[in-house]
Amino acid sequence: MARTLCSMLSSVYTADRQVTVEGWVHRRRRLANVTFVVVRDRSGTAQIVVTDSSARERVLALSEETAVRVSGTVVENDHAPGGFEIVDPVFVALSAVAQPLPVELWRPTVKATLPTLLDHAPLTWRHPTRKAVWAIAAASMAGFRRHLDSAGFTEVATPKIVDSSTESGANMFALNYFGSTAYLAQSPQLYKQVLTGVFERVYEVGPVFRAEPHDTTRHLSEYVSLDVELGFIEDHRDVLAVLRSTLAAMIDSIVRTAGPELDLLNTELPIVPDQIPIVHFSDALKLVGADPAEPDLAPEHERALGVWAKERFGSEFLAVEGYPAAKRPFYTHPQPSDNRWTNSFDLLFRGLELVTGGQRLHNQVDYLDAMVARGEDPVRYGAYLEAMGHGMPPHGGFAIGLERWVARLLMLENIRATALFPRDINRLRP
Amino acid sequence: MARTLCSMLSSVYTADRQVTVEGWVHRRRRLANVTFVVVRDRSGTAQIVVTDSSARERVLALSEETAVRVSGTVVENDHAPGGFEIVDPVFVALSAVAQPLPVELWRPTVKATLPTLLDHAPLTWRHPTRKAVWAIAAASMAGFRRHLDSAGFTEVATPKIVDSSTESGANMFALNYFGSTAYLAQSPQLYKQVLTGVFERVYEVGPVFRAEPHDTTRHLSEYVSLDVELGFIEDHRDVLAVLRSTLAAMIDSIVRTAGPELDLLNTELPIVPDQIPIVHFSDALKLVGADPAEPDLAPEHERALGVWAKERFGSEFLAVEGYPAAKRPFYTHPQPSDNRWTNSFDLLFRGLELVTGGQRLHNQVDYLDAMVARGEDPVRYGAYLEAMGHGMPPHGGFAIGLERWVARLLMLENIRATALFPRDINRLRP
Repeated sequence: MARTLCSMLSSVYTADRQVTVEGWVHRRRRLANVTFVVVRDRSGTAQIVVTDSSARERVLALSEETAVRVSGTVVENDHAPGGFEIVDPVFVALSAVAQPLPVELWRPTVKATLPTLLDHAPLTWRHPTRKAVWAIAAASMAGFRRHLDSAGFTEVATPKIVDSSTESGANMFALNYFGSTAYLAQSPQLYKQVLTGVFERVYEVGPVFRAEPHDTTRHLSEYVSLDVELGFIEDHRDVLAVLRSTLAAMIDSIVRTAGPELDLLNTELPIVPDQIPIVHFSDALKLVGADPAEPDLAPEHERALGVWAKERFGSEFLAVEGYPAAKRPFYTHPQPSDNRWTNSFDLLFRGLELVTGGQRLHNQVDYLDAMVARGEDPVRYGAYLEAMGHGMPPHGGFAIGLERWVARLLMLENIRATALFPRDINRLRP
Repeated sequence: MARTLCSMLSSVYTADRQVTVEGWVHRRRRLANVTFVVVRDRSGTAQIVVTDSSARERVLALSEETAVRVSGTVVENDHAPGGFEIVDPVFVALSAVAQPLPVELWRPTVKATLPTLLDHAPLTWRHPTRKAVWAIAAASMAGFRRHLDSAGFTEVATPKIVDSSTESGANMFALNYFGSTAYLAQSPQLYKQVLTGVFERVYEVGPVFRAEPHDTTRHLSEYVSLDVELGFIEDHRDVLAVLRSTLAAMIDSIVRTAGPELDLLNTELPIVPDQIPIVHFSDALKLVGADPAEPDLAPEHERALGVWAKERFGSEFLAVEGYPAAKRPFYTHPQPSDNRWTNSFDLLFRGLELVTGGQRLHNQVDYLDAMVARGEDPVRYGAYLEAMGHGMPPHGGFAIGLERWVARLLMLENIRATALFPRDINRLRP
């Protein structure tokens, strides 16, 4: 008999309708004359009612998380979750539970420390509240792509093994590449830039790698970067407009495909304003009472700006533009009116840096000047620099860290709770 | 004035309609009284007609590949490509060409050796015949995801930095991970398997890494793997059915979004039959007259089988099932009727192995037996083995190499021509 998903019982119901569901024994409850078995599949759960005494005996052997196939009759019951349940069931165990579970997955919330959750990730992700976190991550990626596809962007796949000639030697993982040293890409930055010379508008969803030596709640040594770059822009404001519509599309995708998961996690989604408020870096420093010579915003400054944007504009998003050139990479485009500042921005979300972006240089001569000023050897940037000498369009872009986005959206304390199998200085398994 | 894409001139045309296009100077042709400038953008090309003599002088400075903004009047002209052109233009150079181009991009075909193409990839990808190759790759990825999304699959992102405990130590890149040794993942195999215990059906599009020491036309050391795994299957035939529908969706996506590129490349797309013909490995050996004790198919056997499938079934695809256990990884499910064989398959496309897939073991005890039989230490498979002891559904899956798919679809001789920035034993740049 073809399988029916648990969530479809109400849809397939007719009198005496026989169904087969497959999934996991989520929870058994043994009462005096009946045993209830809740079976969980990817769509939700179904209640199975076992009254036959020998069948009740056999169900004793099907401990929680056993994979099962259950055939039986669908009946209406107002007291059953969802209004329908399966009676007169026949259970077939598809595979067994060999050891006690490290975490009780049937409880409404997971009672485990973060290290336990992560050590047993293949099992703990089965919990509905954990699965919901990833459903929101997956919906975010889908929304990101769908929006950019519709806006004329081309998906690209750039190499993760690179030679030393990328944005910075700091925090890169070194690799034995057939006897010579290579590195894992910190970002697709240089590749996505030159590809605006090919496709004009590109995006990539892929892993990036940072040899992050600090054990913080905000950093991973491998994460998923949602990268965008677009050509033929006026300045960074055009980039910010694409970022705005992309975030709105990601949230829309979550609403449309992960509604039950949002409810389960009690998530309050932000509203993306039609215009994200923008403040210049120099004004941001004044607003938080910082030294005007500060080259960057401290975390407490970002928090204060988040509060200010919420109060002043009713926005959980705030763009800070114009960061000082000294703190930005060599490819950053200066602010034309005053080259102490740059055409770059950070997007703060709920008082935390979520996205970095901006306009890049697009003329070879400007690159040569910038490299010389920073002591970078232009020879190391061969094909990149060559492209910059062949009619690159004015361009810019941004990168969103998927895990940071999900963590902030769900207000999770530790970014590790959002990656399927996180990597950090102390964690390489599972 | 808002930008108009070159392909939209006919759509926006009204009498005296002023437009601005942006793109690259693709080609200039200087005749006695007129200069034609073809401008290329992401949508196609537009012909610009320059008659004013001082304007013709200025256009001399805009060498091929200069990024430009052109404002002018759209007019109908049956002799113009597309039936419309721009007259009375004003050109603004957005960025310049600093050096002669390594390859003439205006020619209908690229006159360059493969090493030249690859060395200057940021520029050579601009050529329409090169861009078309990637458009087909991008359409393939989009079709893959769209189909699986609609079939209840969840996109996942598994780590690329792994400890030593993965399918095989052979051909892995070693990495300095905060002072200890880690490896780059050869495939998401073990992760996607355990995630069927969470989401039932998962897919991933991401880089995989093989320290491939042979310089062949079929292998890269980094490539994009399209991975699928699904639970609650009967056997590998269920996996093959998903592979069939996925390939059909990928081709459909190419037809819908890359039609002009298919024409440009003169590509003949294959028809995916409703049922992909299946032959057992032992019968395949007989068909090609090979020794029945052969443990694998040689390339000439695959070619002969491709010819046979085309003649016998009119199919460019052929599934070979039942590969001997000795040549398959430890997690391979045996063929229940005869455990010399396995529930695994290769899919041949035009006589070349394109996909490997099959059913996996799903009981912990079977894994322990398989590991012991192969001298693998179960302790190294901690969380993976733990998941296998907690009610894993019967499951299986497959992986398609994106570059190999595109190369075979377009009948390209060398897989390097399909990767944006290929990596091999001799190539780490650009």
